[in-house]
Amino acid sequence: MRQGRTYSIALVGATGIIGREILSILEEREFPVGRLKLFASEKSEGEVLEFHSAEVPVSRLKQGVFKEVDLTFFSAGPTSSQEFAPEAVREGAIVIDTSNAFRMDPFVPLVVPEVNRQALLDHRGIIASPRSSTIQLVLILKPLHDAARIKRIVVSTYQAVSDTGRRGVEELDQQIRDLFNFHDVTIDVFPHQIAFNCLPQCGVPLENDYTEEEVGIANETKKIMGDDRMALTATTATIPVFYGDSESVNIETERKLSAHEVRLLLAQAPGIAVVDHLARVQYPQSLHTVGTDKVFVGRIREDHSVEHGVNLWIAADNLRKGGALNAVQIAEALLLEKL
Amino acid sequence: MRQGRTYSIALVGATGIIGREILSILEEREFPVGRLKLFASEKSEGEVLEFHSAEVPVSRLKQGVFKEVDLTFFSAGPTSSQEFAPEAVREGAIVIDTSNAFRMDPFVPLVVPEVNRQALLDHRGIIASPRSSTIQLVLILKPLHDAARIKRIVVSTYQAVSDTGRRGVEELDQQIRDLFNFHDVTIDVFPHQIAFNCLPQCGVPLENDYTEEEVGIANETKKIMGDDRMALTATTATIPVFYGDSESVNIETERKLSAHEVRLLLAQAPGIAVVDHLARVQYPQSLHTVGTDKVFVGRIREDHSVEHGVNLWIAADNLRKGGALNAVQIAEALLLEKL
Repeated sequence: MRQGRTYSIALVGATGIIGREILSILEEREFPVGRLKLFASEKSEGEVLEFHSAEVPVSRLKQGVFKEVDLTFFSAGPTSSQEFAPEAVREGAIVIDTSNAFRMDPFVPLVVPEVNRQALLDHRGIIASPRSSTIQLVLILKPLHDAARIKRIVVSTYQAVSDTGRRGVEELDQQIRDLFNFHDVTIDVFPHQIAFNCLPQCGVPLENDYTEEEVGIANETKKIMGDDRMALTATTATIPVFYGDSESVNIETERKLSAHEVRLLLAQAPGIAVVDHLARVQYPQSLHTVGTDKVFVGRIREDHSVEHGVNLWIAADNLRKGGALNAVQIAEALLLEKL
Repeated sequence: MRQGRTYSIALVGATGIIGREILSILEEREFPVGRLKLFASEKSEGEVLEFHSAEVPVSRLKQGVFKEVDLTFFSAGPTSSQEFAPEAVREGAIVIDTSNAFRMDPFVPLVVPEVNRQALLDHRGIIASPRSSTIQLVLILKPLHDAARIKRIVVSTYQAVSDTGRRGVEELDQQIRDLFNFHDVTIDVFPHQIAFNCLPQCGVPLENDYTEEEVGIANETKKIMGDDRMALTATTATIPVFYGDSESVNIETERKLSAHEVRLLLAQAPGIAVVDHLARVQYPQSLHTVGTDKVFVGRIREDHSVEHGVNLWIAADNLRKGGALNAVQIAEALLLEKL
């Protein structure tokens, strides 16, 4: 990063669960923020957020606001990204989008900096950050693919209600309070009661009987890994935890990898923490990921149901590495590459 | 069942979470119970349970109690089964054991009546009922295996705290109450906090870095299906739900099965309810299994990451079909076969 230079930053969706996390990570990592503009929907207009002890007002989006902005984070959902991200690019800003709007757009790089930083070189103004479940997955796939070529992945997810934003968190909280007070449960954000329940659905249903999340993980993983031969099938479920997404991952490789080799490869790779001692009941837990930056991996063991198989378990903070942190890391990589 | 004849029944572990369920299912299904003897550990001695409006005292186990007993259910854990089941057989009773004590004993049939009722013919006094996660799995594997030969299964489980008995249920309940009242959480039954957490461990750790539950599912499935070539790998996790076990199941078959064929085969098979309309957000949910007898299956879809693959999602009441009901169904099959 060039010493002394600061950047004019805009953040769309500033009051949302990912937006607030982006602000706090920009602070924490001392990102060279010069001017800061915060935007949110009508109902948050007039709110004031704190950044490095300064009070920053939240405004509504309109034409022209991105002039003289270097970098804009979009974290207000796909509709707002579709409407305003191209506008921001036209006005001269680079956009880092955490929504689903552009992830599979062939002209938009989809980036996890530890995995495919080089994809940034081709950007045309918009860079997409993958969904949480993809980010944590590709981080552990990359070193194993480089070492032994991954042929097929079967993944089942255990996702937190915060993947659905602050309203998902509030719904689980309220449902539990209602149940413990013998009140009826109100169902609004999720299609069914989520308290003390397990829902095999994340994202909207698609026509092929997969959910948007399941197709998204498969497509995004292939795009980021740059290997269309890599086969992946996903089943995604929401469980009653507030924060932290977990995934059960079964991997088939072309060349044999012992559990020991997998542990070594992952321990040396960036962004990963190996927590793997089953006999001492040490493994990744969704609860322990909260507020951390790493993808935790454990339960590493060979799978003898196939020629060269490995099972493992991963967990990460879905709002940080799975969302806000990855977006800020993309911004840091852009500055380093002087893009 | 022979009209009019009743049977002298004993139940070991009568006050436990599975024991109470066995009692209530014997009532509900009007099992021809004549004399009924209830046993539990020292601390439950003197308790009285109700059966068909009669009050039945709970006693401690000792030598000689199984004389003149036709059938004994054991649901007090492996130690008590190991100690007293052979004794019960010597005293003339047939034993149906829901614990892990004899499941993989080559001289003990391991039975899910809808799947391998014929295995009962070879019993030598003890019959084992599989673990909950195996029971619901083999029920849906059987019709698919018969139709297209299953080569490999990758299963990830989402298991309820009641798999660990009443103390597991109490621990989740207490931890949530403590957290909502800003108290410290007490950890006792599970190795870590289970409230709002996801633990990739069910059962004790084994030396091969798999858990007892993971190895159990694989071995029991092969034994029940009677096919050693069927490859299975399992990852098991406990999630913060009270009742109802769910499983994400990926199946590779020798012959092609369309999603439509899978739905038809499963809809016609005994003990199964197909709940599968993703567009209408209909799929099996752990919460909906409570108090039911079926294994629910949904999210049925072809998996194109392998030549002939299918993904599906199952859920069942872990205390009923996954425990007490299967044991009572074994007893009913024994009577029907006059064994």
